[in-house]
Amino acid sequence: MKKSILVTGGARSGKSAFAERLVLGLGEAPVYIATAEARDAEMADRIAAHQARRGPEWTTHTAPLDLVAALNATDGGGPRLVDCLTIWLSNLMLADMDWRGQADQLTAAIARQTSPVVFVTNEVGDGIVPENALARAFRDAAGILNQRVAAMVDEVYLAVVGIPVRIKPN
Amino acid sequence: MKKSILVTGGARSGKSAFAERLVLGLGEAPVYIATAEARDAEMADRIAAHQARRGPEWTTHTAPLDLVAALNATDGGGPRLVDCLTIWLSNLMLADMDWRGQADQLTAAIARQTSPVVFVTNEVGDGIVPENALARAFRDAAGILNQRVAAMVDEVYLAVVGIPVRIKPN
Amino acid sequence: MKKSILVTGGARSGKSAFAERLVLGLGEAPVYIATAEARDAEMADRIAAHQARRGPEWTTHTAPLDLVAALNATDGGGPRLVDCLTIWLSNLMLADMDWRGQADQLTAAIARQTSPVVFVTNEVGDGIVPENALARAFRDAAGILNQRVAAMVDEVYLAVVGIPVRIKPN
Repeated sequence: MKKSILVTGGARSGKSAFAERLVLGLGEAPVYIATAEARDAEMADRIAAHQARRGPEWTTHTAPLDLVAALNATDGGGPRLVDCLTIWLSNLMLADMDWRGQADQLTAAIARQTSPVVFVTNEVGDGIVPENALARAFRDAAGILNQRVAAMVDEVYLAVVGIPVRIKPN
Repeated sequence: MKKSILVTGGARSGKSAFAERLVLGLGEAPVYIATAEARDAEMADRIAAHQARRGPEWTTHTAPLDLVAALNATDGGGPRLVDCLTIWLSNLMLADMDWRGQADQLTAAIARQTSPVVFVTNEVGDGIVPENALARAFRDAAGILNQRVAAMVDEVYLAVVGIPVRIKPN
Repeated sequence: MKKSILVTGGARSGKSAFAERLVLGLGEAPVYIATAEARDAEMADRIAAHQARRGPEWTTHTAPLDLVAALNATDGGGPRLVDCLTIWLSNLMLADMDWRGQADQLTAAIARQTSPVVFVTNEVGDGIVPENALARAFRDAAGILNQRVAAMVDEVYLAVVGIPVRIKPN
């Protein structure tokens, strides 16, 4: 059964752990599509902690920019976990790529998938307006990307203090 | 039928688009009460994008400070959309006006309205405590204003990734 | 009846006022366990405002670091309000104490309590990633602590614009 799910939440809200449990419940041979690259020690620590939590049954792909290609290449196999959309967006913006065009391609690809896929993303718009113009542009873009993916998927969850709250369907 | 609604959410959470749909469902001749002024290019772009999304059936009023007067002046006609309370609050504070007194007048005015009104506001308190004292004062004031309006209206929605979650009545 | 509850929310979301109402509904002789210390005028103002809202029926304990000891010392009496976990965490980190070990002790203590207890905490992870490394470490720690307490308690509420939304059980 094809199924697409979006899990959003703040930092350390339990969204990745919940998304992993969802993927494990969606079928055999889970596939992890990582959008993060270990460019500094803090990021390397976060990636290692995520990997340690996942078991050896996971196959890992890294797709800092080519997320759409990674989804298409892994379709037809086990359920996929994409962790996460905001890091992918950040990578696209830092590489000066057309993130809106990529968002178009992503939403079109979601509609075509035949294997399940769970996306993790971040809530970044719930604080004071950032003084930094780049941070404002990023949080606007993240909000638009999140809305577009949320409109395409079957289910959306908001993680709060480790508790997943289903908001679509609601 | 008189009805008052508050729509809150983070930046780019889909709150304004949802509020516009609500107002269009509440009656004929929708009225847009804008609290923002185009004081720089970024703000002008945001205002233009909002206007482009709305259709020509909307009548627009601008009320950067005199929101209560604008509500009273437009009462008795079509449903109103007030977008948004946090910009109004910011304008009051920058003008060194008594925002608490204005909040008293606003909540009293809500109770007197005979035409429907939908307010948009922002969640600004869900991040790390800002280092800037003015930002802390603003987010405290915004939280207090939001609570006061939420207590007065018939319905409250929280927009998350474009999805409106009804939290009052709940 | 023993009951443990966690109330989370952003700044000025109405979480403390709701938590106070909850505690007053859980039995006689309410006990307030404050984790904040008045180290500057702004904090002193916030503490005074909270105290003014509570009535004289409350007994107050201050536990900037020794929260577990305060819970154990007050157990067997009236319902307790702990306000708040994020300030406790901040105090532990500033004192260079082992906050993870303290979190272990806290969750073990929650399981042993025989009088009701309501914890207040803050959502701090829903904004742009802070540029400040200490702020990032704090919001990670706060998220982990919140998840651990949320997993232990009977009920969890998210306060939004003054409205408590129950998310556990849900």
